[in-house]
Amino acid sequence: MSETKALATYLVNSRLEDIPEDVQHESRRALLNYIGCAIGGSQEPAVETALKALEPYFGKPTAGLLARAERMDPLYASVINGISSHVFEYDDTMPKNYIHPTPPVASAIFAHASAHRVTGRDFIHAFLLGFETEARVGNAIYPAHYEAGWHITSTAGVFGSAAAIGKLLGLSIQQMIWALGMAATQASGIREMFGYMAKSFHAGHAARNGYAGAVMAQCDFTAGDRSIEGPRGFAAVQAAKYDLSKITDGLGTDFQIRYNAYKPYPCGLVVHPAIDGCIDLYRDHHPAPDSIKAVRVRVAPLVMDLCNKKEITRGLEGKYSIYHSCAVGLVRGKAGLKEYTDAAVNDPAVKSVRERVTAIADTSITEDQADIEVELQDGRKLVRFIKQSLGNVHLPLTDRQLEDKLRDQCIPALSSSQVDHLIELCWKIDKLDDVGEVVKATVKAV
Amino acid sequence: MSETKALATYLVNSRLEDIPEDVQHESRRALLNYIGCAIGGSQEPAVETALKALEPYFGKPTAGLLARAERMDPLYASVINGISSHVFEYDDTMPKNYIHPTPPVASAIFAHASAHRVTGRDFIHAFLLGFETEARVGNAIYPAHYEAGWHITSTAGVFGSAAAIGKLLGLSIQQMIWALGMAATQASGIREMFGYMAKSFHAGHAARNGYAGAVMAQCDFTAGDRSIEGPRGFAAVQAAKYDLSKITDGLGTDFQIRYNAYKPYPCGLVVHPAIDGCIDLYRDHHPAPDSIKAVRVRVAPLVMDLCNKKEITRGLEGKYSIYHSCAVGLVRGKAGLKEYTDAAVNDPAVKSVRERVTAIADTSITEDQADIEVELQDGRKLVRFIKQSLGNVHLPLTDRQLEDKLRDQCIPALSSSQVDHLIELCWKIDKLDDVGEVVKATVKAV
Repeated sequence: MSETKALATYLVNSRLEDIPEDVQHESRRALLNYIGCAIGGSQEPAVETALKALEPYFGKPTAGLLARAERMDPLYASVINGISSHVFEYDDTMPKNYIHPTPPVASAIFAHASAHRVTGRDFIHAFLLGFETEARVGNAIYPAHYEAGWHITSTAGVFGSAAAIGKLLGLSIQQMIWALGMAATQASGIREMFGYMAKSFHAGHAARNGYAGAVMAQCDFTAGDRSIEGPRGFAAVQAAKYDLSKITDGLGTDFQIRYNAYKPYPCGLVVHPAIDGCIDLYRDHHPAPDSIKAVRVRVAPLVMDLCNKKEITRGLEGKYSIYHSCAVGLVRGKAGLKEYTDAAVNDPAVKSVRERVTAIADTSITEDQADIEVELQDGRKLVRFIKQSLGNVHLPLTDRQLEDKLRDQCIPALSSSQVDHLIELCWKIDKLDDVGEVVKATVKAV
Repeated sequence: MSETKALATYLVNSRLEDIPEDVQHESRRALLNYIGCAIGGSQEPAVETALKALEPYFGKPTAGLLARAERMDPLYASVINGISSHVFEYDDTMPKNYIHPTPPVASAIFAHASAHRVTGRDFIHAFLLGFETEARVGNAIYPAHYEAGWHITSTAGVFGSAAAIGKLLGLSIQQMIWALGMAATQASGIREMFGYMAKSFHAGHAARNGYAGAVMAQCDFTAGDRSIEGPRGFAAVQAAKYDLSKITDGLGTDFQIRYNAYKPYPCGLVVHPAIDGCIDLYRDHHPAPDSIKAVRVRVAPLVMDLCNKKEITRGLEGKYSIYHSCAVGLVRGKAGLKEYTDAAVNDPAVKSVRERVTAIADTSITEDQADIEVELQDGRKLVRFIKQSLGNVHLPLTDRQLEDKLRDQCIPALSSSQVDHLIELCWKIDKLDDVGEVVKATVKAV
């Protein structure tokens, strides 16, 4: 059986009771983390600008947004949810393939659930299947696809959205094959957009296009049957090397959400070990910015590929700068949302340290590691080697740390009691009769 | 100056009075041809299905469709116009790069002009700039991009739509750069969809996404500045080999629409020479289907790459079958819309001849040529070598042949006097105060 058909068959036949409880719990963690990010990003200029530009085209206001009062059709709601949840780079990441997996899937199904009654069981089931689909498609094409310059969150994400919405719509196997085909032929998003609003749009674009593909498939809009593995299919066209066995091996047992990671810092995952090291040095030594002569960082080669921006003026660019991330760690002892604003990037103390950071790619350093050496003006050297960064799969954020992360992003937009209620809803989302309740709980009471 | 910026600067500064009259006339020919195709395809299942699936999401009904009475917002109107105009494979083609250039651009700007007053001068100017943009982007990445499996009409088309709508919206140079960036990051569409409804969707997808990108850029939604030539930009990511000089060399003088071709047959351009030869043999010999023992065709290698479908049951598949196209030429002496229906593909006489066709790729045959040998049961051999196929740039359809092609597609949907009026409007489109008039003239009077 072809990989596309095998995947579609699994998606259609899957039952929630066959999915282990640890996997179901991880879906609640992923959704809680996602909701915090969507609230945190919901007032950003990228969101405001997209709303202003696209508002004239919105359909009937049947759907609600996460963390905003505007109403629109669920396809545009998917776009806006995607931008909100991805814009701060604070969303979850699969270290296996660098997909930010929850935004493309959850942005679509929360939009859908705000317009149509969806039970919590059906919701987390669809979410897990969408997650599994995009993660496996991503595994099959990573790393060649990503290295070529594709934004894999967007290109693999559209498969996840199509699968999740397709499951909620109750597609047949043939229709699910078409939905995956519509995803394959809409898969796009390039890394040249990193550091611009277009990057956060990718998550919404993937969510909306997968959703639309599933809706079209439900009406029997036909697409190629071998959209993933065919000779002109997604894998062959978008990856110089790929391994289709990763789509099907262990499907239904080896759930990919078990390898998901949640970020303690709102920037590219690959710079996290260096931030851990700089924050440690700040905590232990409190070096004054003026006292720092040079900062030398040895990092995994991918860091230099992704985050080698030194001359920067905007907060968004800071998220792609190993130099800026080290500087805020050393100057402020933290790397929260406030450390990636335009103001932080232009803070003279941060800027002066940033200019003194040099980074070297070292193939002996893994992507969980960083080696930091700070040389002070008085000749002393402060050093730290990070073996395992906080938030990766071997040192995951606890449920409590995830709650704290959500709180940091929600207050002051929501009152403390609203946040308590929202957290409670997230932990019991699978028990809800109507997931639309969660969407409503993210919107500021007026 | 980077190619993206040079292109954006040209688009913003271009004046219609600097574009020669022969180029302006070619825009009228392309638009007349396009309108015929949009009318001809407007009642197809792909169109009906997309309308049914997407109708719940339509925005305010400010825009009209070509050849249909439904109203919706202009972005979805772009999608539907794109499907209608591309579904029959009867639209124009650039032999330089195999883009079907008019659907992605015209589908967007006719949708826009149906919702906002656009003068004929502004309309053909925007059309020509959109055409130029997609053709040049296509030239830069062809053939590597196409050979890899990309549907270049979709991937290059989105740039054309963004440029044309961007011109109508009066974008600044920076905004035009962003619009091209939004196009680059939405560029998608794979050849695995050939023979399915998803293929015709590509033209609408490109039209809509380019339009939305321009609208977002107008509100200052930012995208990468080097979206075409950057290290993770469109060219590097989507083509193993590319030549960026083709974006800018001769820009503003060497207009690409001069190399546009209009199809006499509603199927892939590459099989046209073989059809010419088979129709010639039919006209001269009228061989009875039973009398045909074997048909041997030597064709350019690309024909076998694109149109090697022999076991077929659906009309859409026939458009990608060198075997079917030769069979209808020999059995019916023509290859019109009726020869690419499900009924024609399953016609016993056509089927029996189709099964006796063999085709061989021959590198000494150009893409304008075909060599046909029909062996009869009595041992006679009928041969024909086509050096230059009808409709290519060296043997273009005349204005009158284009009118006849439009008539064939419009009647009986429109009355003869409506068609006369429509043709008149097309030839004077640049003189109209409101191009919305053309859109209205394509809709059946009730």
